[in-house]
Amino acid sequence: MSQYLQIPVSKARIFCEELFKAYGFSADESKTISDVLLKADLYGIESHGIMRLGRYHDEITSSQVDASAKTQIVHETLISAVIEANKSMGQLSGTEAMKLAVKKAKAAGCGMVTVRNSNHYGIARYYTELAAQEDLIGISMTNTEAICVPTFGSQAMTGTNAMALAMPSSPFIFSYDASTTVVPRGTLEVFRKNNKPLPEQWAIDENGKASTDAAAIIESIIAKTGGGIAPLGGLGVLNGGHKGYGLGVIVDLFTAVISCGLTSNHVNRKKDHTGICHYFMALDYGIFGDKKTIKDNMSKFLQELRDSKKAEGQSRIYTHGEKEAQTMEQRINGDIPVNKKTYEELKDIAAKLGVNFNLL
Amino acid sequence: MSQYLQIPVSKARIFCEELFKAYGFSADESKTISDVLLKADLYGIESHGIMRLGRYHDEITSSQVDASAKTQIVHETLISAVIEANKSMGQLSGTEAMKLAVKKAKAAGCGMVTVRNSNHYGIARYYTELAAQEDLIGISMTNTEAICVPTFGSQAMTGTNAMALAMPSSPFIFSYDASTTVVPRGTLEVFRKNNKPLPEQWAIDENGKASTDAAAIIESIIAKTGGGIAPLGGLGVLNGGHKGYGLGVIVDLFTAVISCGLTSNHVNRKKDHTGICHYFMALDYGIFGDKKTIKDNMSKFLQELRDSKKAEGQSRIYTHGEKEAQTMEQRINGDIPVNKKTYEELKDIAAKLGVNFNLL
Repeated sequence: MSQYLQIPVSKARIFCEELFKAYGFSADESKTISDVLLKADLYGIESHGIMRLGRYHDEITSSQVDASAKTQIVHETLISAVIEANKSMGQLSGTEAMKLAVKKAKAAGCGMVTVRNSNHYGIARYYTELAAQEDLIGISMTNTEAICVPTFGSQAMTGTNAMALAMPSSPFIFSYDASTTVVPRGTLEVFRKNNKPLPEQWAIDENGKASTDAAAIIESIIAKTGGGIAPLGGLGVLNGGHKGYGLGVIVDLFTAVISCGLTSNHVNRKKDHTGICHYFMALDYGIFGDKKTIKDNMSKFLQELRDSKKAEGQSRIYTHGEKEAQTMEQRINGDIPVNKKTYEELKDIAAKLGVNFNLL
Repeated sequence: MSQYLQIPVSKARIFCEELFKAYGFSADESKTISDVLLKADLYGIESHGIMRLGRYHDEITSSQVDASAKTQIVHETLISAVIEANKSMGQLSGTEAMKLAVKKAKAAGCGMVTVRNSNHYGIARYYTELAAQEDLIGISMTNTEAICVPTFGSQAMTGTNAMALAMPSSPFIFSYDASTTVVPRGTLEVFRKNNKPLPEQWAIDENGKASTDAAAIIESIIAKTGGGIAPLGGLGVLNGGHKGYGLGVIVDLFTAVISCGLTSNHVNRKKDHTGICHYFMALDYGIFGDKKTIKDNMSKFLQELRDSKKAEGQSRIYTHGEKEAQTMEQRINGDIPVNKKTYEELKDIAAKLGVNFNLL
């Protein structure tokens, strides 16, 4: 029997919007937050979709998120801005920041906006694709609480620290969005649920030894007692772990260092304040030449990648964003799959807030 | 007995400059190229130092490099430029491009310059550190001939495709410089020389099977018959190989797609033309706030990383650029180690060009 229920997109959207209004967000704000969440489900990225409402509920009710927060631009030039988010939902400060970056890019060629004291903002690609919809290159990064150990270290110091980039191209947008760790924490949770040992090279325990025990690693990350996940490239330097470590530092540079916010190792250290930081860049690639020619160059290169020779046992090479675009096409006028456990959680939250629960 | 000779830096510099003048470069050009090469040796990056003179000799004498090339700016805005390198040495178009990016950053906050039809430019960090010396963030990327297979592929389609970023900080500059592949081709050459099998997950052969045979992989890369090195994260998706693959594509986007140059899979397909492309960005981080505060934020974060808990058996956590800075400090007023084979190669080249050879 399937663990998933099929929920009409339209009903999920109405439910999300009603829920956020019940927390005190305006109708417009509720619409924006819901759009970010549902896009993840439409793309097949369950971990960042409405499954996340449980964690958001905790964050809002514990005052990590302030539903009445007003953001402020604390520094600004023609091509840059720093936004103090004052504990807003990440989806709100994130959308505001990327829209500002887009406006600057249209006027001056590029716009870079960094955001401090925000919260989890959902899928990074939501923001980069906002820029791509305006025929710009979009870049976004976010830090998180520390989950990743530096090379030769045993204490989590950098976050999942995703990097995302979207570039218009045809027939699929190029949309890269990935953590700078070997895997995000969610993957460890899947191994824990299935009671399976982690692959070697993925994690190190609080005593500084390589570990395959998903449950122990997750617990020590949450308790902040040491231990964590390896950077992209794994533990040590053999497979390039120092590269993933450096990319994670670069994410903290653009999100936290530059905005005078909290680096990952200081994020989520208080009960009522996460301090998560983001970075957004919109770039008008027309500053380098004819846009149609450049976009065609990209489309041609991506097609050459897809057409290149396959590995044994493989029938298809994907370019980044292709799978998500295809999943969305299948789902957009129909249903999204929702885990039965998530469904029960949503029912509980709806009851607590007195929101009508009618998803099926 | 050591395989290395100790060569005074001053003598190595004079020799390099005389050699490039003998190829027809001006005194200034020869100085610049030599400076890039020697910086690699001073940093302990032998593969990109004067060991490379043999390959440069072949490239210059086969007309892949044109010693009399004049570069042209073919597109320009306040914050951007595209340079047609006309087969110049990469060190020359690279230095010119980063200097132009720095000039634009000082005037407008940021400068982005992309270069097409260039050649190998040495260590990417040379250029990012030019920006950092001006108290700016420097970014650089370069494509190369294809050596890396996309996820689920078996044909090399992207290059070593290095990404570099330098940010001023104290007591060490933060200077990241790494390929987006699991290892560069040079590492496979070391395994071949030592007759050792490659680690699993590093390479795939021309028949599309995972391979540990360094010699066979190198031969098929050179012959362009299929096969190649894995992206950062390895073959398949288990350890995040699709992330390294995507980063490699991003490097081709900024270097080749945007400049209307050749993507990695088309680089080095002609005897007298490589078509290598580069990207340079200089960013005045003062557009985000007080520079001293931001720089102090970075220095503090890096120190926290270095001070964090070590893995079992490890006594030190490095931040990127620290090792190179320390190696340079040891060598700058003394000697660089030069492999005896390299020494003999240099002697041959000197004889061919009638350049005085007096390195010891």
